[in-house]
Amino acid sequence: MEKLIDELMGRIFIELEASGRHVHLTKDAAQMLFGHSLTQKRPLSQPGQFACNERVTLIGTKGKIENVAVLGPEREECQVEVSMTDCVTLGIKAPVRPSGDTKNTAQIILEANGKQLSLPSGAIVAQRHIHMTPHDAQLRKLKDGDTVKLRTLTARPVTFEDVTVRVSPKYQTYAHLDYDEANACGFQKGDLALIVQ
Amino acid sequence: MEKLIDELMGRIFIELEASGRHVHLTKDAAQMLFGHSLTQKRPLSQPGQFACNERVTLIGTKGKIENVAVLGPEREECQVEVSMTDCVTLGIKAPVRPSGDTKNTAQIILEANGKQLSLPSGAIVAQRHIHMTPHDAQLRKLKDGDTVKLRTLTARPVTFEDVTVRVSPKYQTYAHLDYDEANACGFQKGDLALIVQ
Repeated sequence: MEKLIDELMGRIFIELEASGRHVHLTKDAAQMLFGHSLTQKRPLSQPGQFACNERVTLIGTKGKIENVAVLGPEREECQVEVSMTDCVTLGIKAPVRPSGDTKNTAQIILEANGKQLSLPSGAIVAQRHIHMTPHDAQLRKLKDGDTVKLRTLTARPVTFEDVTVRVSPKYQTYAHLDYDEANACGFQKGDLALIVQ
Repeated sequence: MEKLIDELMGRIFIELEASGRHVHLTKDAAQMLFGHSLTQKRPLSQPGQFACNERVTLIGTKGKIENVAVLGPEREECQVEVSMTDCVTLGIKAPVRPSGDTKNTAQIILEANGKQLSLPSGAIVAQRHIHMTPHDAQLRKLKDGDTVKLRTLTARPVTFEDVTVRVSPKYQTYAHLDYDEANACGFQKGDLALIVQ
């Protein structure tokens, strides 16, 4: 019965998650900053993804943010995901982009263990998005790359437009907001959302 | 012609403003912290309201935020308006409230010139709201205290629910968001919004 309710809930609602600022590194960048590959601290909701024991400091033209999460596994490109609030703190102008689309994005410096790595490009504000399994996408007649409106069932309800749908058999279905968005809607862990229109 | 366009635009669109964290003080609190009444630095969009030359530090259980704006004129009650992001920094739990409704809200300490003023209550996250002239309210068939949905015409469009309408002949028509909300919709100065539904 509980499984049936879960299944029905999943067909209607999408669970929200707030993504804090974080960094993806290449194998070379991890070696350069830490002297070894990334090591797993705990798994994330997306299968195979994990939070690392390693942390970095972000340095912009105006300020820095310490103790920033690194997410594994290592990727083909370094990418730094921050909120617009973080951009003001750092003094950088990161554009809103889907993950992976880092061409001509903001410059930023990473620091760890006294070593600095200057990225000429790679800092973005992550476009809000929904990770979706092919099964859940099919139920909703959605395909990878579609854009939907998402109404949050939160303390301060908000409908976010321009939410990108990303479909992969590697995903679990979750909607990802950054902390500006999460705070704007009064998000608390476990809150749900509805695709509208 | 320009005036006519302004008038027509005003009937359809509402200009957005982002309110940074700020403090309202009583006459006694201003005396206690600064040794004198508040002094005007520049006027705000709402007639009679102004940003002060005076600044304070906010102190919570976990952190502090320096150089916070004080807005005049003095009020009957002290009130501190912060964002949810600020609440995390400060380590306080300020509830979402309309301005003026400070009963049983969060405790916070104000500091200026080495003097501290401890407020047992008074820190809120300001409920998003629209200041509206009686004329503009009548055009939209709205009255003081109504709640509307507001769709932002911004870089990252968002529809905010639970936006309180406040009507007074003392107001100019502007919608006020906090910085979490402003960043969540990619607000830039001059951006407009529409009341929907």
